[in-house]
Amino acid sequence: MANRLRLSDLAEQAGVSTATVSRVLNGKAEVAEDTRQAVLRALDLLGYERPEKLKERSGGLIGLIVPELTNPIFPQFVQHLSTAMLQQGYTPLLGTQFAAGSTEDSLVEAILNQGVTGLIFVSGLHADLNADTARYQALVDKGIPFVTINGRNKQISAPDFSTDDRDAITQSMRHLIGLGHERIAFTSGPLRFSPARAKYKRYLECLKEMLPGQEPITSETLFTVEGGQAAARAVLDQGATAIICTSDVMALGTIRYAIDQGLRVPEDVSVIGFDDSSVMPFLSPALTTVRQPVPAISSAAVTTLVANIKQTPNQMSSTTFKPELVVRETTAPPRH
Amino acid sequence: MANRLRLSDLAEQAGVSTATVSRVLNGKAEVAEDTRQAVLRALDLLGYERPEKLKERSGGLIGLIVPELTNPIFPQFVQHLSTAMLQQGYTPLLGTQFAAGSTEDSLVEAILNQGVTGLIFVSGLHADLNADTARYQALVDKGIPFVTINGRNKQISAPDFSTDDRDAITQSMRHLIGLGHERIAFTSGPLRFSPARAKYKRYLECLKEMLPGQEPITSETLFTVEGGQAAARAVLDQGATAIICTSDVMALGTIRYAIDQGLRVPEDVSVIGFDDSSVMPFLSPALTTVRQPVPAISSAAVTTLVANIKQTPNQMSSTTFKPELVVRETTAPPRH
Repeated sequence: MANRLRLSDLAEQAGVSTATVSRVLNGKAEVAEDTRQAVLRALDLLGYERPEKLKERSGGLIGLIVPELTNPIFPQFVQHLSTAMLQQGYTPLLGTQFAAGSTEDSLVEAILNQGVTGLIFVSGLHADLNADTARYQALVDKGIPFVTINGRNKQISAPDFSTDDRDAITQSMRHLIGLGHERIAFTSGPLRFSPARAKYKRYLECLKEMLPGQEPITSETLFTVEGGQAAARAVLDQGATAIICTSDVMALGTIRYAIDQGLRVPEDVSVIGFDDSSVMPFLSPALTTVRQPVPAISSAAVTTLVANIKQTPNQMSSTTFKPELVVRETTAPPRH
Repeated sequence: MANRLRLSDLAEQAGVSTATVSRVLNGKAEVAEDTRQAVLRALDLLGYERPEKLKERSGGLIGLIVPELTNPIFPQFVQHLSTAMLQQGYTPLLGTQFAAGSTEDSLVEAILNQGVTGLIFVSGLHADLNADTARYQALVDKGIPFVTINGRNKQISAPDFSTDDRDAITQSMRHLIGLGHERIAFTSGPLRFSPARAKYKRYLECLKEMLPGQEPITSETLFTVEGGQAAARAVLDQGATAIICTSDVMALGTIRYAIDQGLRVPEDVSVIGFDDSSVMPFLSPALTTVRQPVPAISSAAVTTLVANIKQTPNQMSSTTFKPELVVRETTAPPRH
């Protein structure tokens, strides 16, 4: 492709006028950011070098610690957090905890060695009520700004941004009770993780408030497909007609177990997930689930961290974000 | 938790003897790597600091460019590539192309600003037959080692590691023809991407070889759920009884469209995906698909890149990796 820059080619590719292209290339301020990006994309796509003055400079690296990438909710957080970082001039440095059998501590160490300006922990040890919080205090002592996502821990002096777990359960319970269910089960990974614990407590409260006299039906397994299968067996044996799963991946295992037992979803058993991760809307049946507000959490987390890095005033402290119940095809009235 | 280190606690957590724990903590060489990692994990989990001499030092940053993270095949590559890098002493620096509307060029630039030692491109512009390859020549000229994944391009002088697209189609066609299908459709995202182009060519060859006289049934849309839905409509209207999709995400859209039309999968229409990304085995019905050998590709790509970074002799040049057809529940003999 030619190296001589033709404004008309760029304008056509970007879908804007040649005058706009010219304004962007000259670094004029009166162009909308979307338009500017479209022109820069067109430049890149057509294989031109960006003019030197338009090159973006990074504010530095931000370490991003996620437990794994197999559960699609974590790539979703990575995508939104990375986007927010890049928009604010920072570059994400990703550490996945179970890569190479590494641990959070070893990852943090490797990442700190790269000279990061701050850290974001998604569903890390901060959320594990059994884990020592000294590791986080050590970061505070070293003056390294960080924020946590999903698992507020009062022993850690850093802002946390989490989905409102109690509200997620309230919404799930109301929906299932509204459909006529009374034997509603709660299945979860280890309750030593604070988001699971919060959901579990709220489930017990909801039972008392909304279905007085009903005994809880619960199973504590793992946040995996296999965990969902095992939990489904346990709670279906106790006569559950609806199952609240505390992750979409567990919901997949639950549905799989039900179908393998010759049960239909939702005719014979209703299933609700939690997360609304990437492919869930496209399953057949599509999963009814509680959507985590990933974009809002990501944006607040990065904005607050960047303010702390820059030591600019920021009033944002730990915040919970309302989730929304997305009713699709895996919930229905119970069979009688 | 206590800061005084108790060997017995560590031994119990790691599932090894106290003698082994002691050998690991003293940095003795005669311990298997798995065992060493287990003890280090136990240290981290119990909240102890690692002894200074055991701290791992990074060989540097390797930039990892992936187009996006919504399609679960990309997080899978990120996970395996990150693992391989960490095992070889490098830290991955992730760039996702569509974050913040950024382009491959702007990401590469941001990542190079962080002083990376090498780059890995997964399904990048190297695979786009319409894109200018000058951007890659510029890296060669600057002496920055890099490798590409999925999309060998003879104009780029760097090793490429790709799934054997031709073999993927051969296996899919044999499977469907073995079941008795004759009206087999091929659906794909844009054919300007070399893996899609290679599959398309092989599909046409297979038709001639295996089903002489059958006209091709094809649809070129996008590598998305919506692309799959649109392609399914097009090829079902032409009387296809089986549909080969060139990505799992397209297969989800294809199944969704079929079910919305009142068709059953696989009784009325068979569907084959490509990738075998994370949740596909757990769908109901579970997806029959062609598995990309992600671990093998990732390992070869990182080992070769690291050899090039260290300028050690490495004979590994561009290589294709055999995929495997995983037959699950979305393929069956055609209805008569």
